[in-house]
Amino acid sequence: MFDPNRLIIFDTTLRDGEQSPGASMTKDEKVRIARQLERLRVDVIEAGFAAASPGDFEAIRAISSVVRESTICSLSRANDRDIARAAEALQPAPRKRIHTFIATSPLHMKIKLRMEPEQVLEQARLAVRFARNHTDDIEFSPEDGSRSEEDFLCRVLETVIAEGATTINFPDTVGYAVPEQFGERIRRLRERVPNSDKAIWSVHCHNDLGLAVANSLAGVMIGGARQIECTINGLGERAGNTSLEEVVMAVKTRADYFNLTLGIDTTQIVPASKMVSQVTGFAVQPNKAVVGANAFAHASGIHQDGILKARETYEIMRAEDVGWTANKIVLGKLSGRNAFKQRLQELGLELESEAEVNAAFARFKDLADRKSEIFDEDIMALVSAEEQAHEGEYYRFVSMSQRSETGELPHARISFSIDGKECSAEASGDGPVDAIINAIESQANSGAELLLFTINAISGGPQSQGEVQVRLSRAGRIVNGVGADPDIVVASAKAYIAGLNKLQSKVERLNPQVGP
Amino acid sequence: MFDPNRLIIFDTTLRDGEQSPGASMTKDEKVRIARQLERLRVDVIEAGFAAASPGDFEAIRAISSVVRESTICSLSRANDRDIARAAEALQPAPRKRIHTFIATSPLHMKIKLRMEPEQVLEQARLAVRFARNHTDDIEFSPEDGSRSEEDFLCRVLETVIAEGATTINFPDTVGYAVPEQFGERIRRLRERVPNSDKAIWSVHCHNDLGLAVANSLAGVMIGGARQIECTINGLGERAGNTSLEEVVMAVKTRADYFNLTLGIDTTQIVPASKMVSQVTGFAVQPNKAVVGANAFAHASGIHQDGILKARETYEIMRAEDVGWTANKIVLGKLSGRNAFKQRLQELGLELESEAEVNAAFARFKDLADRKSEIFDEDIMALVSAEEQAHEGEYYRFVSMSQRSETGELPHARISFSIDGKECSAEASGDGPVDAIINAIESQANSGAELLLFTINAISGGPQSQGEVQVRLSRAGRIVNGVGADPDIVVASAKAYIAGLNKLQSKVERLNPQVGP
Repeated sequence: MFDPNRLIIFDTTLRDGEQSPGASMTKDEKVRIARQLERLRVDVIEAGFAAASPGDFEAIRAISSVVRESTICSLSRANDRDIARAAEALQPAPRKRIHTFIATSPLHMKIKLRMEPEQVLEQARLAVRFARNHTDDIEFSPEDGSRSEEDFLCRVLETVIAEGATTINFPDTVGYAVPEQFGERIRRLRERVPNSDKAIWSVHCHNDLGLAVANSLAGVMIGGARQIECTINGLGERAGNTSLEEVVMAVKTRADYFNLTLGIDTTQIVPASKMVSQVTGFAVQPNKAVVGANAFAHASGIHQDGILKARETYEIMRAEDVGWTANKIVLGKLSGRNAFKQRLQELGLELESEAEVNAAFARFKDLADRKSEIFDEDIMALVSAEEQAHEGEYYRFVSMSQRSETGELPHARISFSIDGKECSAEASGDGPVDAIINAIESQANSGAELLLFTINAISGGPQSQGEVQVRLSRAGRIVNGVGADPDIVVASAKAYIAGLNKLQSKVERLNPQVGP
Repeated sequence: MFDPNRLIIFDTTLRDGEQSPGASMTKDEKVRIARQLERLRVDVIEAGFAAASPGDFEAIRAISSVVRESTICSLSRANDRDIARAAEALQPAPRKRIHTFIATSPLHMKIKLRMEPEQVLEQARLAVRFARNHTDDIEFSPEDGSRSEEDFLCRVLETVIAEGATTINFPDTVGYAVPEQFGERIRRLRERVPNSDKAIWSVHCHNDLGLAVANSLAGVMIGGARQIECTINGLGERAGNTSLEEVVMAVKTRADYFNLTLGIDTTQIVPASKMVSQVTGFAVQPNKAVVGANAFAHASGIHQDGILKARETYEIMRAEDVGWTANKIVLGKLSGRNAFKQRLQELGLELESEAEVNAAFARFKDLADRKSEIFDEDIMALVSAEEQAHEGEYYRFVSMSQRSETGELPHARISFSIDGKECSAEASGDGPVDAIINAIESQANSGAELLLFTINAISGGPQSQGEVQVRLSRAGRIVNGVGADPDIVVASAKAYIAGLNKLQSKVERLNPQVGP
């Protein structure tokens, strides 16, 4: 039976989230995150933009082949070619949605599309009509809807609903909206569009003014929307999208006020957050709601003190309910292949072949030799490394040595292979990391610019591995490389090499700054 | 003339922000931030909680002595001793405010205060009466106001306004509120309290559900509040407080909707954000609104592409307006003491004595010998280091050497002094950082637990310094140590030693989990 208060959670981490500069993911990474989103029980996973690149197409197709519960969605512009490509990528999915969009604001129509309003209306109509050949589940977004002229918007929306669009998504593309006004706008649109009750209304907000969650909820409470588009950790361009974790926990914690039902398994929120942060290299700040390291006092190792006499005095959510668990030593030197494989499964890290499991296990044994306590986070980093390797390594780390001493110039030597051919290099630098990057570049001559460099301890505690994230840029393309090792100089070299490999892979891609 | 639409910005970075575990600041750090807050032109700076510790008292007093424009405020519980202490600390300030509070929710009164409602009412009355002996500017907060019983709350607020409270601050202490309800509650309170127009109403929100900014703005728009309490970067316990930068830029960017006037100089926002992040060791995530590295496309070095034909297509704020500027090479090896001193002034880094300027200049020359390009961020790190040194170093770094090589155990040697006595130690570890921490601990035996370890490149680019932040815990006390050096192993050793020094300093302090 259809529940009028059922709120649909539409996750666009893999599409709009991935559009963040430097957040691009490989196919395997996307599949891994999609599986976690399914465990989180999101209703719809927007897996990419099939026509944007062969890589996006393949990722959507792979996700469509493995995810059974969530609906899989592809974005597409409002033209037949894009839509056909989306349908083809989604073909294996048990539940599929095509999400088509076109800009309806005067500014975007004139400057970006160079089209007259009537042309835009006609193109929207034809796109939805064409999409209906492929699925009954069609979402339409008027891009830059919050700055569109209302009469025109109503005509467009009425037209696409009449053609069979089942979800109407109202985006605040530039993050300009304020809650009450945004909610009222959707309410008015739903009132004015005669067939509005034939579709579920949706909101898609950006957080440029810190109001994405409130705008989304106003769209639901004032406007009557019943779908929220959001991303894990609020990942997304600029200040990002609506945070899934914040919207979900607001609705759950204030069920007395919102009176909405959700399908989400909240205990999968923190694992999803950690996975997305690790894969993309986008850190979560400690004072981030729900998923920040400090968000719950007792999850960050803080001593509860005398004045805190009753837990509810200061706590409105329980850390366990969103999946915070203490770091556990899960495996050690003596753990066998079966224990390792089982832990992979528990973590949702399903490697494709036995050969990959074997390779990851070999990495694990190597790490366990050098590090006595292996945490879940270490295993996740291992699998990331294995997947990076699996996707083809033009450059490959072999070995290194480095030294530094007060009063002398830091020095590093590295052996690595370029396209299968091993080479060695040495160099000095301001520090050992600078030295090893200089050594790599003395052979690779990549022309890449290093934009960002960060190191995080993977699990906390002194025996933690360092996880290095580098962001490289070349000719307008930006990639992240990740490397983990107990030795941060080695981790830095691995991360830099991973970044070079990503730059090396030929990716033809549409301008990412497209879509709602 | 009094402007009914003037919105007062009350910054509590130094009080509620500092209550974040690990965010504690030294007196000099607080003075530096207070000066930046004055440049930002915040109306009120809550500088601390005078009765909480001698350190807080001294910091408030120092800030009261140097800040001329902003009102300086101290928190105090609703008792004579706290209030007298606050007044004493504020004595040098040209404009001073005492902010007193008491819990009014049934849960807090019963469990935390163990008082009857009538006792709470009487204590609030007497506290405000006593505070009036010291200043005419008195703020009162009913702690956990959003969960307080309304009739009682009205009686308390009427009473304190009658006694002379000029600001009534309504806090959502646990971050439970939703915007419309929160705004309505304040509107109703203002309607029901007969003398409500004798005070300016204020809101103080926490971001546990991602709604702090929206709740604050609803308090203003629906409730008629005209003061917002907030922190730089949304620093604060758990998910933090309302972000100053988000609230300010929402009000500015949507002036058409909010129609409020502000005193803030927005070009000082990003410098304030960087300073707070560096001092506290709390990183800002890249997709953070306004102050995140990705918040503005062109500030993060992203190539503007063809589709972005008009800037306003995707931009609602200008990066320059909030103080984003490209990293500039400001100084080099050949820069003299005057150029250095001038740059310090431009950055608002006013060192107290010529001796401190000389010491910082010596550090600068040492750095310039090893690093060809010196950025503003490097200078900020230098001054932090100098201030840490100035505050007394029980442990002091002297020199080190370290090496690591594939297949061998990483090894480090360090010389450092303990209470003036030099010692050397060496150790192995999983990596060079682990090795050098092991070496330090083999002599220091501090018993500290390493909770977090992060490294950021200070300025981006290959010749960047590494800035290491460690979070140490001992016996329930949590401190951050920061160290910067082009060699990340040296930076790690310095950060670890800075953390040990903070643990070493005797700080007697009230439970921090107090206050609105």
